[in-house]
Amino acid sequence: MESKSLKSVNFEKRNGIIPVVVQDHKTKEVLMLAYANQEALKKTNVTGNAWFWSTSKGKLWMKGEESGNIQPVREIRMDCDLDAVLYIVESDRPACHTGQRSCFHHMLAD
Amino acid sequence: MESKSLKSVNFEKRNGIIPVVVQDHKTKEVLMLAYANQEALKKTNVTGNAWFWSTSKGKLWMKGEESGNIQPVREIRMDCDLDAVLYIVESDRPACHTGQRSCFHHMLAD
Repeated sequence: MESKSLKSVNFEKRNGIIPVVVQDHKTKEVLMLAYANQEALKKTNVTGNAWFWSTSKGKLWMKGEESGNIQPVREIRMDCDLDAVLYIVESDRPACHTGQRSCFHHMLAD
Repeated sequence: MESKSLKSVNFEKRNGIIPVVVQDHKTKEVLMLAYANQEALKKTNVTGNAWFWSTSKGKLWMKGEESGNIQPVREIRMDCDLDAVLYIVESDRPACHTGQRSCFHHMLAD
């Protein structure tokens, strides 16, 4: 596992906003997919809680700021191209606004 | 787990291209993050192998078409907003072009 600085993250390639996969550290379940700009990633790194950029509202948001279901982040990983992020979180609360544990609760039918 | 059709996927919201998280079904490791348009998702559903849309090359590609490291897809899940996909795959081959098992092999340093 190679260490990279915030500055090396390739936001430019994705117009300033990159996808973030959120995974539970214990069960390894994929909980949600959201987005981050540089500021969101910085706030996550500094505060230890998951911050994102809302592409629909056009603003920073902390996961749980309204629901209380905050996501303490244990590790921040980045992919080989440095344009996708993985937050590994410690939280047993629902990640989905529907109240479900994971947002990925639909299956593609034929 | 609710079933959804290909038609219900919200490609429009993301300008026709949505992020795809690839996860190993056995270890639950997050292997990579790529993108799909409607055609890529359809091909994945029909063929049972992971197809994507290359945002850099502007074309469809099947994972492993060059490396041989194909990713048979066991399940296709979608998130609550129907604008992000999760491929759960059965493959013990490297997912990363660097030869590593997962593309997420960088850690964010302070």
